[in-house]
Amino acid sequence: MKKTILFIFIFISLSLHAQIERIDPPNWWVGMKTNQITLLVYGKAIQDLEPTINYSGVKVVKTEKVENPNYLFVTIDIDSNTIPGNAKIEFKKNGRIKITKNFPILNREKNSANRIGFSTKDAILLIVPDRFANGNPKNDNTPKCLEKSNRNYESGRHGGDIKGIINHLDYIHSLGYTQIWNTPLVENNMPNYSYHGYAATDFYKIDERFGTNEEFKTLVSEAKKRNIGLIWDVVLNHCGSEYYFIKDVPTKDWMNFQDSKKRTNHLKSTLLDPYATVQDREMYTDGWFDVHMPDLNQKNPLVASYLTQNTLWWIEYANLSGFREDTFSYADKDFLANWTKTIMDEYPNFNIVGEEMTNVTELSAYWQKDKINADGYKCFLPTLMDFSLTDNLVKSLSTNNDWESTWKEFYKGMGQDYHYPNPNNLLIFPDNHDMDRFYSRVKNDFESWKLGMTLYTTMRGIPQFYYGTELLFTNEKAGNDGQRRADLYGGWEGDTKNAITGKGLDAKELEAQKYLSKLLNWRKTATVIHNGKFIHFAPEKNDVYVYFRYNENQKVMVILNKNKEKVLLDMNTYYKMIPETFTAKDIINNREIRIEKTLEVAPRSALILEIKN
Amino acid sequence: MKKTILFIFIFISLSLHAQIERIDPPNWWVGMKTNQITLLVYGKAIQDLEPTINYSGVKVVKTEKVENPNYLFVTIDIDSNTIPGNAKIEFKKNGRIKITKNFPILNREKNSANRIGFSTKDAILLIVPDRFANGNPKNDNTPKCLEKSNRNYESGRHGGDIKGIINHLDYIHSLGYTQIWNTPLVENNMPNYSYHGYAATDFYKIDERFGTNEEFKTLVSEAKKRNIGLIWDVVLNHCGSEYYFIKDVPTKDWMNFQDSKKRTNHLKSTLLDPYATVQDREMYTDGWFDVHMPDLNQKNPLVASYLTQNTLWWIEYANLSGFREDTFSYADKDFLANWTKTIMDEYPNFNIVGEEMTNVTELSAYWQKDKINADGYKCFLPTLMDFSLTDNLVKSLSTNNDWESTWKEFYKGMGQDYHYPNPNNLLIFPDNHDMDRFYSRVKNDFESWKLGMTLYTTMRGIPQFYYGTELLFTNEKAGNDGQRRADLYGGWEGDTKNAITGKGLDAKELEAQKYLSKLLNWRKTATVIHNGKFIHFAPEKNDVYVYFRYNENQKVMVILNKNKEKVLLDMNTYYKMIPETFTAKDIINNREIRIEKTLEVAPRSALILEIKN
Repeated sequence: MKKTILFIFIFISLSLHAQIERIDPPNWWVGMKTNQITLLVYGKAIQDLEPTINYSGVKVVKTEKVENPNYLFVTIDIDSNTIPGNAKIEFKKNGRIKITKNFPILNREKNSANRIGFSTKDAILLIVPDRFANGNPKNDNTPKCLEKSNRNYESGRHGGDIKGIINHLDYIHSLGYTQIWNTPLVENNMPNYSYHGYAATDFYKIDERFGTNEEFKTLVSEAKKRNIGLIWDVVLNHCGSEYYFIKDVPTKDWMNFQDSKKRTNHLKSTLLDPYATVQDREMYTDGWFDVHMPDLNQKNPLVASYLTQNTLWWIEYANLSGFREDTFSYADKDFLANWTKTIMDEYPNFNIVGEEMTNVTELSAYWQKDKINADGYKCFLPTLMDFSLTDNLVKSLSTNNDWESTWKEFYKGMGQDYHYPNPNNLLIFPDNHDMDRFYSRVKNDFESWKLGMTLYTTMRGIPQFYYGTELLFTNEKAGNDGQRRADLYGGWEGDTKNAITGKGLDAKELEAQKYLSKLLNWRKTATVIHNGKFIHFAPEKNDVYVYFRYNENQKVMVILNKNKEKVLLDMNTYYKMIPETFTAKDIINNREIRIEKTLEVAPRSALILEIKN
Repeated sequence: MKKTILFIFIFISLSLHAQIERIDPPNWWVGMKTNQITLLVYGKAIQDLEPTINYSGVKVVKTEKVENPNYLFVTIDIDSNTIPGNAKIEFKKNGRIKITKNFPILNREKNSANRIGFSTKDAILLIVPDRFANGNPKNDNTPKCLEKSNRNYESGRHGGDIKGIINHLDYIHSLGYTQIWNTPLVENNMPNYSYHGYAATDFYKIDERFGTNEEFKTLVSEAKKRNIGLIWDVVLNHCGSEYYFIKDVPTKDWMNFQDSKKRTNHLKSTLLDPYATVQDREMYTDGWFDVHMPDLNQKNPLVASYLTQNTLWWIEYANLSGFREDTFSYADKDFLANWTKTIMDEYPNFNIVGEEMTNVTELSAYWQKDKINADGYKCFLPTLMDFSLTDNLVKSLSTNNDWESTWKEFYKGMGQDYHYPNPNNLLIFPDNHDMDRFYSRVKNDFESWKLGMTLYTTMRGIPQFYYGTELLFTNEKAGNDGQRRADLYGGWEGDTKNAITGKGLDAKELEAQKYLSKLLNWRKTATVIHNGKFIHFAPEKNDVYVYFRYNENQKVMVILNKNKEKVLLDMNTYYKMIPETFTAKDIINNREIRIEKTLEVAPRSALILEIKN
């Protein structure tokens, strides 16, 4: 009995003794526009303590307590004249210091605010790091990780990591890419199905199985040497259920449907539907993706500041060139407006691409900066993903009919660009990690694939390709995520095929690799593709789609012939764009050609003609 | 030799002797806002003569000669104080009267300007007159008609006429219709394929095979006795190649592509496409539907005034309650803006529905009055046809999947109504003469048909049904116009089946007739359906779609269960719209029901509940 009492006594004293497990963010910088930040201080009974800072230029402006005594939200102000160094935060009780924590105030990198984000000048490679290359087999499993590595399991962790990406930088560069977008690298310490990265358990930390925060910085600097930027995959809508602030929740409204965990209805139409009920609209933005992915309540200002600061932190910490924001419209609308504004105010030349997965162009255009919406809503998102372009292209390429060109589907789709205030800021892509592989969608038809690649490298917008596209990766089973995210050839020791060396690749794969890399490397310097205007011609029965990219000095004519027969183009159709006779550089076939009244185009083939004025 | 000279002499004198074949319009009215009209005077060498009018209040303001000497365009002004009567137009040469023509100046019918057009209060019956009922077999063939009657030929003339429609007015009334839209009745004296009426050869005259202008007036007045209005099918874009002003063309620019007869590309996307070439845009509006259907050039003011006056003339002459305008966007944009404005200025409570055959909601919304378009374009068209609603409904009704309700397709489609300044002014329809029959599209499933009919009679908008829908008409062969426009049962003597008497109809046909007629007759007085608001609930896995029509005094709950099982609805879902317990009138099943926490809905069935407050 005595023993028990003693035990209880010790337990109570221990639990009453305040501790600090973490402070998010762990540091900040001098000279940010966002110079007031709210630190989330987490630790047992931390609310018993009073934080103070004694560091010139840095002061505590507000201390906020919430329902859960283990959280303290401390808002500090960092004057722009502050001299960088280690600010100390002293946590006191009754005037006595109980805990002291370092809070580094850092210098920003030179020109950080003016960094240039990804843009139409770029071609982006999308990587699923777990499936790309296993550069360091030693980190496949770490003691802390709940899910262990298992390459034989389609939905398991295969061991790909940051080191693997670093090892492939020369390959990526040789293919012609200038940006890398990795699916999320932050810790996803979930019991299972954690490789995709969208169930974060620590927004501030690289997952140990991918590497370390420092190793990610190395990737960024190594990539930079090859003129490659890094795009960070941001998730604002949800996190993983193993996040510390989910397991021990700060407030009653930290998550939406905190107790009921109701699922989202995925009905994005509710956002603009004049007839939708308030409840159905809430079910869209506030519903959960999955019971293991709590839906964060960005209407709570403490959640909002946590997310915003975290994303600013990564730009500054890791020297990023852009964000991809996941499941964009599922987060709170007003928060999204504020978040995009804050990021873009801080970095005016940065870029953010939002994932609004819809074919309804105007639902997507709704979010773009400068869009005038009927309901007055204003977001500041520069770039949207253009899902409808790919769907229209696949429809055009994979169908035929006797009475008219199926290019018309694509042509009509492009005609909807009037919805966008800035259609050049659209991400265009054959596929991504959530889609069936482009090569499968065009029914493993190599000529269709080539027509597609030619289009993506010459069309308006910012092209993004998915790893393995250069090797004609497929997913036989439609909708199968495991197949969509197959391991890159040669990323693992003992692989029989190798993307870099070409070992084991068949002739078609080698040709595909060469075709795409030629186009991407040409595109790097073809500035008219980056900034030229676009004009297209109504597809006729001959099944040829023709468009031009042009500016005052340059002109590129793109001819996409999906006809099974060769076609004799009447060049007079394009008389407003071209002289009567001219010489052009045929990029794909490495030749100069003289063009007069007609032009013969080979069956099922593309031409990119640089026209000399 | 002498004979020849004599012959030539006589020929020249005859040909020089001016004649008048017609004056369009043949009369006008006093007190129209459009009180300056341009008469098209057609006759051999008419340009030799000088028109004058000596009638108080009426004066010639302009006489215009064109390239073709057989045309004279005489603009007259009719003062609002003019006393009605026969104005005489004297055509003089060197001061001597050569020809005198009567031009009646008529009184308008009382309240003509304030006539009430069709609206949400109405249900419209669409009739293809040649296929509806042959009331007068004597007019099946007339000496003048190029195409003779042949009921055995799918694309031939079957003999239906105005008398046939008059004979069916009681039937139409009993079904619950309050408006009739006939496909065009004007003369289509073309050598073949003329029954549809869209290749006019005289915009001022009822086709002899349908009857006479006077007979059409009788139809209007007989219909009016039964509170049924008449909607006139207007074609502004084109006419038939046998039109007098096509065979002997007034000007070089009377038609678009007058010599080359180029076909339209049907690419309506070009109208808003920021990348389309000027040429492709022109090919859309200026291209011909068919070499037998010349595309009228409304940019020529003489063509424009001819068309506008003709349409005003029919409203006034025949006492119409609305227009349906064919192939709306194919005509010149600026003309369409002027035409709609002129008609609606003249008759502020009239209605016009434009056929913009597209599923792209915003392409359709572009034309609606009060729409704020990005390019500043303003049209004054009150009503559009809602093609996407039907396509979405058919998709929802004719498909199933395991993981979610296919009602979601329909729900999402409704969500796009924000594009329309006035979504209540949309024509909703299961099908029309250019579409596959609704019953065929829902795979001859009677329950799906009933769900559809329930929706069309309770949804926002103006419902239109196609003749034969009440008898489950089908077209087995998709796209087959002959089958889509089959003869109404009993419209011809000797028919084995009869829509009016019920002779030969099977049980399902009789039930369908009863079902639709019950809904339409109920809808007549259900004003909340005419003017109430609309709210709908996101469809859940139970495959039930629920919406309400409501205003301050009334409330109707519509429940559409496409589930194969009965469904127990949790009424708490609708708590914002209904009291905890209530009594409702079940319109379809003629009963009162008391509703508490749940409501059982039979498999694949609809409920319309009038809720008592």
